[in-house]
Amino acid sequence: MTPGTDHRSRPRRRGAALEDAIIAAAIDELAEVGYSAMTMDAVARRAGAGKFSLYRRWPGKAELVREAAYRLVGDPVLPPEPSTLREDLLAAFRFMAEQMQGPAGEALRGIVSESLQDAEAPTVADSSRGSSQRVLREILSRAVARGEPVDPEVSPIRMQAPVALIQHRFLAGGGAIDDEFLVSVVDEVAVPLLTR
Amino acid sequence: MTPGTDHRSRPRRRGAALEDAIIAAAIDELAEVGYSAMTMDAVARRAGAGKFSLYRRWPGKAELVREAAYRLVGDPVLPPEPSTLREDLLAAFRFMAEQMQGPAGEALRGIVSESLQDAEAPTVADSSRGSSQRVLREILSRAVARGEPVDPEVSPIRMQAPVALIQHRFLAGGGAIDDEFLVSVVDEVAVPLLTR
Repeated sequence: MTPGTDHRSRPRRRGAALEDAIIAAAIDELAEVGYSAMTMDAVARRAGAGKFSLYRRWPGKAELVREAAYRLVGDPVLPPEPSTLREDLLAAFRFMAEQMQGPAGEALRGIVSESLQDAEAPTVADSSRGSSQRVLREILSRAVARGEPVDPEVSPIRMQAPVALIQHRFLAGGGAIDDEFLVSVVDEVAVPLLTR
Repeated sequence: MTPGTDHRSRPRRRGAALEDAIIAAAIDELAEVGYSAMTMDAVARRAGAGKFSLYRRWPGKAELVREAAYRLVGDPVLPPEPSTLREDLLAAFRFMAEQMQGPAGEALRGIVSESLQDAEAPTVADSSRGSSQRVLREILSRAVARGEPVDPEVSPIRMQAPVALIQHRFLAGGGAIDDEFLVSVVDEVAVPLLTR
């Protein structure tokens, strides 16, 4: 879209279709220029949408990126049965580490960085933690069904601990998120905290 | 110091004295204006030092703040014996949570925020994690001496897990770092991971 083009003269996308186009454009911008350099203007241009249609839905970049990140992060595919608690956890954490390498990771960095500088900015979506907790609950019920000695009523903080370790290393540094690290999170922290 | 004053005409502080004055000024600036608004210029003015004397020691704000944070964070005072593993851990984590409310927390936010936006920026000092690990090792050896069933050779990642949970909540949000949270980190995560 060239500057000065009136987007209202194009066939108008509405509702979900327009929203999807904006989110897709936001994800592409994130992947291409990163969170800091990304602007609402550039997202609007890329989506072929008017700036107002962005601001009508999201107050600013942080909220738009938060929604993009939420849509980006899918659920891991767990190994086919017969699996084990350990194998399921490894699959979930490897998936999480992979996501951090892509635009979802870029979005996460951006949201956290923004919230650290501005007390009013939204923090990392509870929704994103909600999604890792949902996966962990599924892993626990698979383990219960197999008869493994897990506690299906385990406290939320025990489920948060391994995820926090991985995200903390991603955010605060301290070493590579490689397979050796993920295996030690599973064997030293996740399995002990989740089994009876 | 008024603008235009030549700091070289004052009695010159050197070495450690000058460095201490700069670090003290950096801590005051952090507490007063926060990391984002803080500048090397303002720190130099507050310390009554020349800008060059800052840049000769630290390449930029991030490195200066990192050192200030490192000096800021002291070690917790552990309860007098007879204590318990649980009481020692609670004291250490309460101290950590208190530090996060002050300039050390502001420094931590700033360093992380900077490192998230700039892949070249230093991440949170390994030194800062080193300090919490040192405290945890002291707590473990007190527990061993008391005959509590702890594993003195526990893997580093088990010691990192509770600290990562607290720092992750500080950086990424998700709830208050209140006493209820700290107690559950101790009872649900730290004690189970550190005892045999």
